[in-house]
Amino acid sequence: MRWGGTVLSNERERRKEALQIQMHALGADAFLVTSPVHLFYMTGRIFDGFYYVPAQGDAVELIRRPLTPAQAGAIRLKSPAQLPDLLHGAGLPPPKHLALEDRELPYAEYTYLSGLFPGASILGGSALLYRIRMIKSPYEISLLREGAKVHDETHRRIPSLYREGMTDWAFSVEIEHQIRRMGHLGIMRCAGIRLETCSAIVLSGDSAGSPSPYDYSLPGGGRHPSAPMGPDNHVMRPGDTVNVDFCGNINGYLTDITRTYAVGYVKPEAAAAHAFSLSVMRAIEHTARPGVLCSDLYHLAWDMAESAGYADCFMGTVQQAKFIGHGIGLQVNELPVLTKSDATPLQSGMIIAIEPKLICPGVGPVGAENTYLVTEGGTERLTLCNEDIAILGHSKP
Amino acid sequence: MRWGGTVLSNERERRKEALQIQMHALGADAFLVTSPVHLFYMTGRIFDGFYYVPAQGDAVELIRRPLTPAQAGAIRLKSPAQLPDLLHGAGLPPPKHLALEDRELPYAEYTYLSGLFPGASILGGSALLYRIRMIKSPYEISLLREGAKVHDETHRRIPSLYREGMTDWAFSVEIEHQIRRMGHLGIMRCAGIRLETCSAIVLSGDSAGSPSPYDYSLPGGGRHPSAPMGPDNHVMRPGDTVNVDFCGNINGYLTDITRTYAVGYVKPEAAAAHAFSLSVMRAIEHTARPGVLCSDLYHLAWDMAESAGYADCFMGTVQQAKFIGHGIGLQVNELPVLTKSDATPLQSGMIIAIEPKLICPGVGPVGAENTYLVTEGGTERLTLCNEDIAILGHSKP
Repeated sequence: MRWGGTVLSNERERRKEALQIQMHALGADAFLVTSPVHLFYMTGRIFDGFYYVPAQGDAVELIRRPLTPAQAGAIRLKSPAQLPDLLHGAGLPPPKHLALEDRELPYAEYTYLSGLFPGASILGGSALLYRIRMIKSPYEISLLREGAKVHDETHRRIPSLYREGMTDWAFSVEIEHQIRRMGHLGIMRCAGIRLETCSAIVLSGDSAGSPSPYDYSLPGGGRHPSAPMGPDNHVMRPGDTVNVDFCGNINGYLTDITRTYAVGYVKPEAAAAHAFSLSVMRAIEHTARPGVLCSDLYHLAWDMAESAGYADCFMGTVQQAKFIGHGIGLQVNELPVLTKSDATPLQSGMIIAIEPKLICPGVGPVGAENTYLVTEGGTERLTLCNEDIAILGHSKP
Repeated sequence: MRWGGTVLSNERERRKEALQIQMHALGADAFLVTSPVHLFYMTGRIFDGFYYVPAQGDAVELIRRPLTPAQAGAIRLKSPAQLPDLLHGAGLPPPKHLALEDRELPYAEYTYLSGLFPGASILGGSALLYRIRMIKSPYEISLLREGAKVHDETHRRIPSLYREGMTDWAFSVEIEHQIRRMGHLGIMRCAGIRLETCSAIVLSGDSAGSPSPYDYSLPGGGRHPSAPMGPDNHVMRPGDTVNVDFCGNINGYLTDITRTYAVGYVKPEAAAAHAFSLSVMRAIEHTARPGVLCSDLYHLAWDMAESAGYADCFMGTVQQAKFIGHGIGLQVNELPVLTKSDATPLQSGMIIAIEPKLICPGVGPVGAENTYLVTEGGTERLTLCNEDIAILGHSKP
């Protein structure tokens, strides 16, 4: 099933109709889609311009760049100031209640676009798009499956990239190189203005617990204050555990996997904590199904951590992440979010990454992360590489 | 000269005072700095929180994350809703005219923050920060010099990464790997919501002229519609020219270099067009000095292109870039921009990338890009690697 032809045109139609239903509920009679991620979602490509969705009927693309030959249904736009005239020329009535992307557009751009439609009330519309994107279509799921296969294969090759005496930073560079060679597009899309990362998060030893500006599951402190996330460039020592967490992206859809490695041998306390993490993963797998609340899964994981005596090192130490999983797709941080207070019920077609992780003081990070499809009957794990701790280098004591 | 201690505290004080002068001109009695790039610029690190600058006197950091021990001058913040109370508690009067980052903050966040200060008029303040950042301090220039050395060295090693029959994509992956091994932090900061890239732009043959969503100097069309920029994964053929354009980032400050390579041998028309590009570079070097307008340099380059008969292939073919250079620093697209209409006079301390490029139909892209410091007397080139076309693989006719 390839993007293009019938698939493309069916997906575009389905997504446009889903947005029109959401618009009706909001009271919007038009939506001006503007951000790269949402132009891609709605049209299948990224351009500098707009995708204008009326309350009913066909949507219109208005394209400033790329300068390609005219396409059916697309209007050439030189400046955003032409929007009202061009829409009028296309036979569309002026909007009365226009939705704009309030969480993607900078304030200056949002107010500029609002000013072009002085007769319209302006409604924040980003949440509508997040809600639609939360449920993936069979086509999107097929892309996620395809991405997961490449991502799994990268993790299988990770032990072969290790060299004795390597720093966590150097290891991350080799891992990134491996997945780029296998087709990773080099972009990791994040919603919001804060998260900035595109490299593999490789953490070992106690530095895995470094606090960070981000509410991330074991982000690490980074090697430079301008990029305060990821490995800090210390040498990985025998007995250290090593978490490797990164997103695959070979077709625009992200998959998320974390696996734990250990230099030379696994210390008993790391083996025990890792086994506990996998027991949380299994418990969530057996509980998660349509109707179960995101917050239920959060509490399930935390109750287990407390009973097992891991409350102080579950999801971090100095700074503990406030979630145990998250939606993922075109961006790493999509809906739903598995937090204490998110009462969203799981629905069939959601894609969620589950990441129960722990830190073993003096040893390093353990745990795993998998990407799941929520199905009618429960969940299906898309990321299938072995979850056990794999040894880096030669085994010793 | 290392970041920290006296350097850090002097830079912070200098930048804060520069912002206070700009705020006075705008009529703002407070600035709430919020975005990662501007928190880093103003404080030397990135955190989730705010940097509050009053009209006079000391600024205050309000930090939500990372959860690190309390620091002098920093206030712990659990939620942005606490801002007014915490500022009051710190003895600061309520702002009457508060500046916010109108080009970084999404509309929803900007209006939320505005709502916390109902007694204040809100002013868009991003332009103030862009203006200050345009002139680099001696410390920032020292970082750019340091980055340029590593970046130069990477370009020197590029021919050794080429293998016969390689695609432009595979070549870009090896180049990226090389500079990551040399310390590249893996992030390329771009201003605005549109530009999304972190890989080396390697373009060869006619695909270098592919139109794109971005106003970029030879962006390429990419290999996937979700990432429409850069190499498209075709095999580079003997006689093709190859442009390699990417930003170095080993310390947060970006340097920009493009060099041209050729597979096996250089076709005469490529040699001629490349020599023309370098003659434009030399003409700009000899003209650029404080007081010269950005638009003068733009017209100088275009007048030369027209006289030499290159008007149809200068800065692109199907889609020609609307600038011939740009400011650079923490982000790739800073002020000034060397366009037809930018009447900004050059000033000492500006850092500008100059990139006169051409496309030879049937051969590929040629030209170079350098990063310059504007000095009292003219310009100083920071990127010193050889500008001639370097041969990839074995020489052959």
